[in-house]
Order: sequence, then C-alpha cells, then structure tokens
Amino acid sequence: MPRRLNPPALRPTAPVIDVNGSLTDVAGITVGHHRRIGRGWRTGTTAILAVDGATAGVDVRGGGPGTRETDLLRPENLIQQVHGICLTGGSAYGLAAASGVMSFLESRRVGYSVGPLPDQIVPIVPGAVIFDLGRGGTFAHRPDHDFGLRAAGAARRRAEANGSVGAGTGAVAGRLQGGIGSASTVLQSGVVVAALAVVNAAGSLIDAATGLPWDTSAHDLRRPSRADRNLLTSVLAAPAPSVPASLNTTIGVVATTARLSKAECTKLASVAHDGMARAIRPAHSMFDGDTVFALATGAHDLPDASTTGFRTEGTRPAELNIILDAAALCFAAACTQAILAATSIGGPLAYRDLCPSAFR
Amino acid sequence: MPRRLNPPALRPTAPVIDVNGSLTDVAGITVGHHRRIGRGWRTGTTAILAVDGATAGVDVRGGGPGTRETDLLRPENLIQQVHGICLTGGSAYGLAAASGVMSFLESRRVGYSVGPLPDQIVPIVPGAVIFDLGRGGTFAHRPDHDFGLRAAGAARRRAEANGSVGAGTGAVAGRLQGGIGSASTVLQSGVVVAALAVVNAAGSLIDAATGLPWDTSAHDLRRPSRADRNLLTSVLAAPAPSVPASLNTTIGVVATTARLSKAECTKLASVAHDGMARAIRPAHSMFDGDTVFALATGAHDLPDASTTGFRTEGTRPAELNIILDAAALCFAAACTQAILAATSIGGPLAYRDLCPSAFR
Repeated sequence: MPRRLNPPALRPTAPVIDVNGSLTDVAGITVGHHRRIGRGWRTGTTAILAVDGATAGVDVRGGGPGTRETDLLRPENLIQQVHGICLTGGSAYGLAAASGVMSFLESRRVGYSVGPLPDQIVPIVPGAVIFDLGRGGTFAHRPDHDFGLRAAGAARRRAEANGSVGAGTGAVAGRLQGGIGSASTVLQSGVVVAALAVVNAAGSLIDAATGLPWDTSAHDLRRPSRADRNLLTSVLAAPAPSVPASLNTTIGVVATTARLSKAECTKLASVAHDGMARAIRPAHSMFDGDTVFALATGAHDLPDASTTGFRTEGTRPAELNIILDAAALCFAAACTQAILAATSIGGPLAYRDLCPSAFR
Repeated sequence: MPRRLNPPALRPTAPVIDVNGSLTDVAGITVGHHRRIGRGWRTGTTAILAVDGATAGVDVRGGGPGTRETDLLRPENLIQQVHGICLTGGSAYGLAAASGVMSFLESRRVGYSVGPLPDQIVPIVPGAVIFDLGRGGTFAHRPDHDFGLRAAGAARRRAEANGSVGAGTGAVAGRLQGGIGSASTVLQSGVVVAALAVVNAAGSLIDAATGLPWDTSAHDLRRPSRADRNLLTSVLAAPAPSVPASLNTTIGVVATTARLSKAECTKLASVAHDGMARAIRPAHSMFDGDTVFALATGAHDLPDASTTGFRTEGTRPAELNIILDAAALCFAAACTQAILAATSIGGPLAYRDLCPSAFR
C-alpha cells in the first residue's frame, strides 16, 4: 500500500510510490519478457519498447558493465531518441538479444530514418546485461537473437510482471533469488515517473539485523518472526556458491512522461542510482555492472529552460528536481520489490520462502 | 559506539565505522578550520592538507557545483598527486580561499615541481564550495585568500573538530543547522578509510516519521521522545526562510592509506556518493553541488593490478571493493555525524537542540 514518505514541506510533491505500479504506467512504454528454465537453462530477456521514440540517457556506475549503444546516448551525440532498451541475462554474450529486439522493431518499421524509403531505418536499442552464466547448469545456455525477438513480441501495455521473469530469471541477490521489480508514481503536476529494476546484486537487499529490506520506505512490511529471521540469517551467512556470486549487476530503466532533453535524461539516470544505493548494500562494486537508462516520452511539458535561478518552484530545474527525487524513490522501491516478488526457480531460495511472516 | 553492520559472510571485512574517527586517522592528512561568526559573518573554510602528496580523484554529482582544479583530476591528465583540498563557504566567491591554501603550501615549499629550483613549485589544491551567502546577514561577507591561509595554518593531525566549524559554519541542512562530520574505519587488511563531509543539503537528513537520521547504521541513537519529535516536525515543516534554502550542497573528502591509481581514486569518490544518497533525501538535486574528492596516501600496497578475474578474494578489484564499501559507509556516517554534532550559531536550530532525547 503506498504511503506518504515525508511532510509536504520537505518535498513539495510528497511523492506516493506505488509498489504495484509498472514501467508501463508511462504511456508509450511497453514491456515484454521471455525466459527459458529447466534442462540447463535459467536465463531470459526483457524488452522495453518505445515505438513512438523516447529521449534517453544512461549512467553506468558499476565496475564491470556490459552494455551497447551507450555512447550514442551521450548528450553531445546525434541520436536523440531510442526505440527500445534491451535488458538481458547472458553476460556479454546476451547482448545478442538486443539484435532480436532490433529485428522486431525493424519488422514494424520502427527506427531512425536513414533513407527516403520507409524500410530504410535503424532501430536504436541500447542495452545492458546481467551475469547469470551457468546458473541453470549449462554455461553455454544464454539469451540470443531469438530471446530478444520473443521478448519484444511479448511487449504489452499491461503484460508486465515482477519477479523471476525475463532478464531477472537467472538473477541472484545476496544469496537469494533475484528478479525484476517495478514501481511508479504520479506527481502533483500529473507527470508520471516509473522504474523497472533487474536485481542481480553482489550486495544484499536485506538487513540481516532486522530480516527486512534495507529500503522499506514504500513497502508495507512487518518485522519477521524470530524463526524466519534465524532461517534467513543462516542462508545469508552460507558459504558462497561455486558459481561466483560476485559477478553481479543491477540494471534498470526509469521512465517519465515529462519532455526532457538528453542531458536531463542523463541526470535522471544518474540520480536513479541513489535508489540503488539505498536499496542495495554495497552497491556499485567493482563486480557489479550497475547501469540505469532513463526514458522521457515527452507528453508533459516542463517550464521553458530559460526559467532558471534560485527559486524553488515553477522553474525548470525545480520541476526537474521533483522528477529526479521521484526517480530515486521509484528505483529504490523497484529494487526492493524485485527481491519481494522473486520466486525460487531451481536456484537460490527466495525471500518470500524464507520470511513469509514479513508480509502483511 | 561503533558496531558491526552485517555478518562477516556478507562483507568479508564487516567494517566497523568509528563515528568519533577523523579524516586525519589516515596518516599524512591534516585538517584545519577557520571561521568567522557575528557582525554579519557566518562562514568559514576547511583546509585538508597532504604535504607529502596524495593521489586524488573526484566525482561531481550535484546539479549546481562550484569547483576548481577538478579537470586535472581526470585520470588521463598529467597531475597524479594533490597537496591539499579546500572546502569552503562563500559559493563561487569562496574559491578564492583555495589560493590562500596554495600560498601556505608555497611558503612551506610544498607543490608540483615546475623548475630546477626548490621554490619553483605549484601546489595543487582542488576545491569545492557550499552556498551560504547572506546566512550571517551580509551577502558580501565570504571567505577570501586570508581564510584559506588561516585554515591551512591551523591544519593539525589532532586538531580536527566536527560540528559548525570551518566550511560547515554557514551550513544548513533540511531546515536545521548543518556542519562538518567525520568517520573512519580500519579494515582487516590494516588499510584505513576515512571521510569528512560538509553537510549543507537541500534534502533532509532526518526521517520526520521517526525523528531519527535516515542513516543511523553507525550511530547509537534511540527513538526521540514524543515531545521532541513534535518539536522537530514543526521545525522541519516550517516555511522556507527568505534566504533560498535550496541552493545547497554537500561536499567532502574520503581518504585512504591504500596505494590507488587516479582512476581508482575516481571510483572511490564516486562510490562515496552512495553514502550521501543513504544519509540525505533527496540527494544530488539540481540545486546541490554535491562533490566528493578522494585521496590515497599510498602507505598500503594492494595486490598487483594483474590480479583480476572472478575471484572475490585476494585480487586487486576485490581488495579495492572492500575500500569502496567502507568509503560509502564512512561518508554516510560522516553526513549523519555532521547533523548530530552541529550546534546553533545564530542561524537555524541544531538537531541536538530539538532532539536531546535521541542521544544515549
């Protein structure tokens, strides 16, 4: 149940984060998943589509990233809009899935026009990967072009799910099953801000002292029973599995209906990392490839860029600020939601298996 | 009182953060403050000296920074070591204080050699400012060359103080008096990590729902009395003062005895911002100039850079990782310590005035 985080005086809009919200609460964004489990498989791909285009930015803050098409997102470079983001398992091999997302978009004639004919297009699909190699048993089982094609083909306005789906299928976070989480909020201005996180962190989302997530500010949980806490502590303290748990990564997307520049999207992606820092400890390690993309669909105009200065209301930086704060809160809530929604699928146990008493 | 943050299994070194620690716990680093209060003054300067040089990096993540000598800190640029960092009030005007720190160092013949004679040196002193203009009453009263000279002259191994001193004199954080905080830790390897934060944040360090700081993980506090919470809430919810509280900034330094490259120092500064994100909500706003410098004195060697790969122990990235985590924890603790140590000096009330019941 969403609740107010702070008195309005501290944050003009007092954002109410909906942990049942979705990235697709931003109109124009669709999300699709494809996964394969069993027979040595435990991985998948998530396609986030913006078939009408979305202005984009990225901030890569992990020490071991696996990404594509991030250089074109630098504010000084040509391309202003992307048509999709591909998040996928498979480590660097999984980048092949993004080509499948491109193929889907090309077949729908969605892309950057590079010639006079309607089929002379190049879809722009940046992407990032998580490390899940060998987690289903077979090291060579990883997403390929077909995974991206299927994930994009499954993209819907209302088909998104949280938990161990899509790119979150093979995810592990602090010895527990990882996965995908989402959250969204509607600001007083009507601007929608939403986040989707694929949580596969070297750090932990759980405070072993309480048995609760580090960041519960948007979630309605209660302190787990002593029995559940003891069980959880024993799992968290278990020796590391033979598959290196340390080659992990949290990747995700924040999206908004606001009309932002590429530079503002870059800032948005950057501040969303604050949510990761709050939900995951440690975050941004040398072994994480932590990467956040930002998408702005442009439905809501902000004040003109000339409205700057020291005033805290009504100016463009002031309005952007409210969106930045909301993005950090949504991303933290999405990370926590990922660990709460995860279900065990033949790998590590899930938080909800170990701590059912935390859920009201 | 320091306490363990997590079972050893989650963090190999289980860092114990000493909130009574100091940046000067890193041998080779000295800290000095100068401030002026009363008669329209309420500002100051803090000089952090490394007279034997320290490898340095920086990460500027706020939307409104005021800095100097940060371009030379980019890993690809010539200069490897700095001789001091100047943190100061006075907004961009206050950058003049860094020239005073340079003058002090020049007089001691500390600097980068640019000629055959011992006095042909250029001290390298990057710096960052907080916005405190007009907070003592007179807009034109701000740190100048003399402030830097005096702060550097006051630099000692054991003269550092927390609270509303030096660059923290005019600081405000979420309607409360801001200031300077410090924290340190000694890792199992013997490497020392420490942080100093000047907290002047647009965001709040206090969770209005509990009356406690957002990040108390290293502090031994108790839930304040209802009367104290009510008083605190009324202050936090008060209308913004006429001086724009929004043009704020948290700046600081993390230091370590490890021998790091400039690129590794850049990463260290970057991850220290995670501590800011945990302690201050929101952080990194458009109106904050949030900047963290990192210093590495080089007393402790890390494993050779060729020791990389997936192993989580004994490799250089693994050892660096432990330092990164500790830096984020120290910086969060330093931010919280700043608000706890602050005392009212003719401006906003301090947390300890409003919530004495939180202190054991």
